[in-house]
Amino acid sequence: MPGERIEADVCVVGAGLAGLTAARRLTQGGKAVAVLEARDRVGGRVWTRASTAGMPIDMGATFVGPDHDHLRALAKEMGVDLFATHTAGDTVLKTGSRVSRYRGDVPRINPLALLSAGQAIYRLEAMAKKVPVDAPWDAPKAAAWDGRTVSSWINPTNIPTKRARQLIETTVRALFCCDASEVSLLDLLHLMRSAGGLTPLMTVEGGYQQDQFVGGAQSIPKAMAAELGSSVILNAPVHAISQRDGSVEVSGPTATVTARHVIVTAPPSLASRIHFDPPLPADHALLLHQLPAGTEIKLVAIYDEPFWRSDGLSGASLDMDSPFEVTLDTCPPSGEAGVMACYAAGPKARRLAAMSVDERRSVVVDLLRARFGPAGAKPVEVVEQNWWEEEWSRGCSMAHFGPGVLTQYGRLLREPVGRIHWAGTETAGVSHGAMDGAVRSGERVATEVLRAATA
Amino acid sequence: MPGERIEADVCVVGAGLAGLTAARRLTQGGKAVAVLEARDRVGGRVWTRASTAGMPIDMGATFVGPDHDHLRALAKEMGVDLFATHTAGDTVLKTGSRVSRYRGDVPRINPLALLSAGQAIYRLEAMAKKVPVDAPWDAPKAAAWDGRTVSSWINPTNIPTKRARQLIETTVRALFCCDASEVSLLDLLHLMRSAGGLTPLMTVEGGYQQDQFVGGAQSIPKAMAAELGSSVILNAPVHAISQRDGSVEVSGPTATVTARHVIVTAPPSLASRIHFDPPLPADHALLLHQLPAGTEIKLVAIYDEPFWRSDGLSGASLDMDSPFEVTLDTCPPSGEAGVMACYAAGPKARRLAAMSVDERRSVVVDLLRARFGPAGAKPVEVVEQNWWEEEWSRGCSMAHFGPGVLTQYGRLLREPVGRIHWAGTETAGVSHGAMDGAVRSGERVATEVLRAATA
Repeated sequence: MPGERIEADVCVVGAGLAGLTAARRLTQGGKAVAVLEARDRVGGRVWTRASTAGMPIDMGATFVGPDHDHLRALAKEMGVDLFATHTAGDTVLKTGSRVSRYRGDVPRINPLALLSAGQAIYRLEAMAKKVPVDAPWDAPKAAAWDGRTVSSWINPTNIPTKRARQLIETTVRALFCCDASEVSLLDLLHLMRSAGGLTPLMTVEGGYQQDQFVGGAQSIPKAMAAELGSSVILNAPVHAISQRDGSVEVSGPTATVTARHVIVTAPPSLASRIHFDPPLPADHALLLHQLPAGTEIKLVAIYDEPFWRSDGLSGASLDMDSPFEVTLDTCPPSGEAGVMACYAAGPKARRLAAMSVDERRSVVVDLLRARFGPAGAKPVEVVEQNWWEEEWSRGCSMAHFGPGVLTQYGRLLREPVGRIHWAGTETAGVSHGAMDGAVRSGERVATEVLRAATA
Repeated sequence: MPGERIEADVCVVGAGLAGLTAARRLTQGGKAVAVLEARDRVGGRVWTRASTAGMPIDMGATFVGPDHDHLRALAKEMGVDLFATHTAGDTVLKTGSRVSRYRGDVPRINPLALLSAGQAIYRLEAMAKKVPVDAPWDAPKAAAWDGRTVSSWINPTNIPTKRARQLIETTVRALFCCDASEVSLLDLLHLMRSAGGLTPLMTVEGGYQQDQFVGGAQSIPKAMAAELGSSVILNAPVHAISQRDGSVEVSGPTATVTARHVIVTAPPSLASRIHFDPPLPADHALLLHQLPAGTEIKLVAIYDEPFWRSDGLSGASLDMDSPFEVTLDTCPPSGEAGVMACYAAGPKARRLAAMSVDERRSVVVDLLRARFGPAGAKPVEVVEQNWWEEEWSRGCSMAHFGPGVLTQYGRLLREPVGRIHWAGTETAGVSHGAMDGAVRSGERVATEVLRAATA
């Protein structure tokens, strides 16, 4: 391979939160580290872009919950401040052509539907409690739960009313960015377990969306990369990893690193495309090949001001019949402008992707007017991000497990293959799929490699 | 890239039945073709090795059914003769420690279980008839059938007796080489539809296992390769495919082909590892990333003679509690030796793979003695093949579709991406997953490319 030749103790593939966290820990532990990043930026699925006016806009992972203590500690260390997501005001619920407002997290829909959804969630929560957070394959009913899809569980016996079934389907789509048919029931239960339940996953105050980072979430990986300096090499995709006696060679068109260990933090579907020599053990290759990520379009409408707040609205909205089912207020703490994030996931996102930019803009402008009034129709700027068209992400927000995969192959997620170690939020137990999970996985793998290096 | 530089009209990736069929048709159509094959042999998942005594032993695809007319025509053209799989005699059924014998295809198990399995198969057949063979995603109930796993359908409501549920599970494991939890119900129904029902898939006389090829199935790809001569380049893995205005470049460490079109016939999980430039459309990349193949070990025991025949046994046996659930007589037509093929699939194959060669041999010798008597314990040779450990197959006998994949991404299976065309048995409607499907896909893609070349 042509390109730069580098020697290091440890090579890290991917400069997302997991990779940079690991690189910092290893550097602090006295190791020479080289981080190879395919993109021209750090952060991976965490990306903050600037609006035309220079305002930071999070296009990927955005929020942090109260229990995300590893991520919170890291932010503090990096000097990145938090601010609370705006919640004051009513949430908008649109059903058919009817727009209603409600307070708190429980939408004002048909009480029977609510009861039905509530009972289903109660049952799911009880099941999730029985899933070991670091070993979901060891759950007492793992085989049965992994033998079916979430969509087959969302049936009229378990959830009698149609609206309630829709509500659970929307929830699953929002969490996994794919259809409930694609997700193993055990994967959903594990995600719930890793977050302490479904409620924390879906709520702002006290939940996963409670806080945001001043300057955007990418401030954290940027600060880490600044600290690591020239150890982080951008525009350096990895095509091959060879293991020889006592060393690994990690190579791509622009750089080749020789090291004692390599840490692969790329999402599984990207890791599966690396040419390993010797080839990965067959089961490990099959695992990586069976972890697709979801499809999501995040579209952000920017206004001169958060006009909805003066109408007594929080900015949160739900319309299960719309392509963008959910919106959230993601204004900067200054309140200098109105920033509304609109989310489309799974099949709905793919239908939107088939449209032109102008068509999508018109879809979103129409729905923002319908939910928040005439001012919604006049954003000063609209920016959007399609995460599965990104060659170096291929999906968002995390890989999901189809039926049968967790129980048969899940044990290999964190299992080193010789001098190859694995990290990334997909390998996390607690905070699985979240930024906090990525940080935890980076810490875990750094300890693992430091231990292996002294063994 | 280093290595040989070749110019051609069409580059074919993979010298299996699909690739070689396409290459022949294109050559006959006046095109200059270069076939790049990663292995040091042609045939892909069709591989005939020689026993110590020089007898041809099929380690992969072996059988041909009466309706496999494209494969039969090709064999005739290539001068490869067929012979009938041996069927005379009783089939052995082992349940627990009890060994019984029966005639025909219906095992002698608890009549209630049989009735229950029969009813389930009847219902599945009725559903399968509603699946369009070339567009399973258009089935009237496609969404519902694709929203659940086969294992969730195999429940006490649909199949009341446990033995019958086991029988259907074993059948699915034999067909897909994976657990019923990994397969979408729609995928099973499509496979059944593509074969004309479940019965043809599972039976010898009148079914998929009716005939074999004299000299082994690999005789056909070998004859095609001989005809194609130096157009077939072995030891030439493909790492990258670039499309530029009017041409494609197909490159790997040993050869680079510049052509007008490229046909990718590698199994989807291998195709997904190629670096495409520009990257594949996101949905297409997601499709390829979601088609893992199953895990199978085929172990062949060779004896001086087919001793079971003189005991009035056909060689076919079934033991649902054994790692090798099924055996079949695959003796050469001469009857010069006894050749018994033993199949282990899915999780059972992976458990066997964790054993040593000697342990596996001892497992198989014990079960052959138990099913066929003391002579079963004394093979003169045992050969085995683990298909998912093969870097250039990564599974057998075909890719399966997890829930949600066929309906959301299936339409892209045969959809060209610019100058990239797709073939392989996974892209076939009729005879999907069989050798006949591979041949049909090669013919279809050759027509497609010839048409595109004159457009």
